[in-house]
Amino acid sequence: MSFPADSVGLVKPETLHFEQPLTLECGRTLPNFDLVYETYGELNAARSNAILICHALSGHHHAAGYHTPDDKRPGWWDTAIGPGKPIDTNRFYVVAVNNLGGCHGSSGPTSINPKTGEPWGPDFPLVTVKDWVNSQALLADRLGIEQWAAVVGGSLGGMQVLQWSIDYPERLRHALVIASAPRLSAQNIAFNEVARQSILTDPQFHQGHYAKHGTYPRQGLILARMLGHITYLSDDVMREKFGRDLRSGRFQFGFDVEFQVESYLRYQGETFSRNFDANTYLLMTKALDYFDPASEYDNSLENALAQAKCKFLVIAFTTDWRFPPERSKEIVDALLEVGHPVSYAAVQTDKGHDAFLLPIPTYLRMLKGYLQRVADEVETE
Amino acid sequence: MSFPADSVGLVKPETLHFEQPLTLECGRTLPNFDLVYETYGELNAARSNAILICHALSGHHHAAGYHTPDDKRPGWWDTAIGPGKPIDTNRFYVVAVNNLGGCHGSSGPTSINPKTGEPWGPDFPLVTVKDWVNSQALLADRLGIEQWAAVVGGSLGGMQVLQWSIDYPERLRHALVIASAPRLSAQNIAFNEVARQSILTDPQFHQGHYAKHGTYPRQGLILARMLGHITYLSDDVMREKFGRDLRSGRFQFGFDVEFQVESYLRYQGETFSRNFDANTYLLMTKALDYFDPASEYDNSLENALAQAKCKFLVIAFTTDWRFPPERSKEIVDALLEVGHPVSYAAVQTDKGHDAFLLPIPTYLRMLKGYLQRVADEVETE
Repeated sequence: MSFPADSVGLVKPETLHFEQPLTLECGRTLPNFDLVYETYGELNAARSNAILICHALSGHHHAAGYHTPDDKRPGWWDTAIGPGKPIDTNRFYVVAVNNLGGCHGSSGPTSINPKTGEPWGPDFPLVTVKDWVNSQALLADRLGIEQWAAVVGGSLGGMQVLQWSIDYPERLRHALVIASAPRLSAQNIAFNEVARQSILTDPQFHQGHYAKHGTYPRQGLILARMLGHITYLSDDVMREKFGRDLRSGRFQFGFDVEFQVESYLRYQGETFSRNFDANTYLLMTKALDYFDPASEYDNSLENALAQAKCKFLVIAFTTDWRFPPERSKEIVDALLEVGHPVSYAAVQTDKGHDAFLLPIPTYLRMLKGYLQRVADEVETE
Repeated sequence: MSFPADSVGLVKPETLHFEQPLTLECGRTLPNFDLVYETYGELNAARSNAILICHALSGHHHAAGYHTPDDKRPGWWDTAIGPGKPIDTNRFYVVAVNNLGGCHGSSGPTSINPKTGEPWGPDFPLVTVKDWVNSQALLADRLGIEQWAAVVGGSLGGMQVLQWSIDYPERLRHALVIASAPRLSAQNIAFNEVARQSILTDPQFHQGHYAKHGTYPRQGLILARMLGHITYLSDDVMREKFGRDLRSGRFQFGFDVEFQVESYLRYQGETFSRNFDANTYLLMTKALDYFDPASEYDNSLENALAQAKCKFLVIAFTTDWRFPPERSKEIVDALLEVGHPVSYAAVQTDKGHDAFLLPIPTYLRMLKGYLQRVADEVETE
């Protein structure tokens, strides 16, 4: 019942309804939409200390603290957000939003299509990173935040940060891009495609209308998550965590779980399949595939990032093979070529892509060091 | 109708029936079994110029030449086997066998269980690399080959070569281990497990009795192969081959094929699913997972390889991330520690794991150089 001293404690999601239509990159228009979000800390009088947290593939608005005193786990980035933590809620007003198309309260496949009175299901439009950023800007308007002190995100979240810096250059002072990439590689897309095919071809999927059929493409989602999970972990951390350890100590010569790593993956897949919507998963992978801000600027990442006016912190992790340091360096190099201030670190860790969510001391110290200067900056203005 | 001058030309598979029982590592016994194989070149009078080719996950006995004048493609390793080629059929007698558990003619899930008179299906025992090598030794006996000039294989084939050197040290002069590893990593096993789960959970699988049900787990096999294929290619070669190219030039905002890499993977998966048996695929992935010769020698690869008496050539490929050069170096280091002659090369290429099957000039020259010395050696005795 008592939370750690550096926790934001009990938090409550808020929902904002947007009555205005939102035109999307795909050409379709959402007649209206909801965004669910949480806030931690206090907005200062100058409204200058707000930080936006952008979530990754399977994230949501519950980034820190607890919803009930009995919650076993806090929000997904509680290691980084709280009083005295790197994203210090004693100094910052932190806003975490669930993206459009999500399955945690913002308008998405599981919410009601106002035109039909039934859940959108697969008819919810394929939203893009750009669409998300546009909707987040409308949220900022409603919260009275003209300019973010920083926009922060890892992985797909980092892509939103990049898009913010390009599309709304006046509206953020700092961009923190973590474990991300300026666009997916063919290999990244290939992994997404296998995950999608496993869901799309699940006989329970019914072209996305599983709710109507009273079914659920559970197995497809399990496979997708098992596969995704392999790409989140490094070869090193898998070796260290599981090696070739056997669950029962000897080979069974059958297809039940034998190696610990199999058991772990099946568990991860099953847990995920109970807590995530398949249509949302599909949509999120497409947002990843489509992201390519350079494509709007003659395929020049330099030209795209030349739009930005903020300062950048770019962080990568040495064993991340999903978005390896070289991909972060593409961002850094482009920023340097157009003369933008950018700090870059490739943090040494064996944790792979997942590192951006983990309490890795060097990494958290870097975040904290950078953001303390940001706090000083906004407080002395 | 005319074959290239350096082709072995028309070839015909042979089948040998083994009436003796074969006890397997899993504890079960095959009462009798068939092995299908092909041979190229002539066995010399001293019976000393024979080379055994061990195949990988989806390979078989048809390694070189053509079965009919109309065949569009030759055997799977035709780039390396033929008159004047690295595995020179003017000098060597080459034997390529389909492993037990396969689906191309040797006893396996699709062949008849003598006890029931029906296809084995999922009741075919899970054979291991060690079992394969034992059965290959029986084949050598029947062919009157006391000692192979060389045993050669890539990937899972390389594992058989290692096992030969440990279990039958007197029966080979040279071991050529290409793009292989002394055992799978946790990440390797994890990828295999996702592939297996995609087949095992396909509703058409019926616990392996799909033939009886008149069904086929086509979709599961497609997913397994799509995933496998990603691990066979390097990130570099995928970038070069497909990049982010779109099939129709623009985003479709749907789940049909958009990127060229998606189209390629689906095609690979579908082709494979028409030509391979699902029970065999499952069994082959298990043989990979189980392979760990060190486990019989106090988990010491050095102790295991200390049994060997042959000379070794170990070849890896720089962009192979399935079995990267570091894995080959584990083999090389262990051999050096126990004082065995070993030559090692990490061939520079962007082709990834697939490189071992491809006509990469440096690689083929190395094979040729090494094997010419082997031919000289056996011919001058």
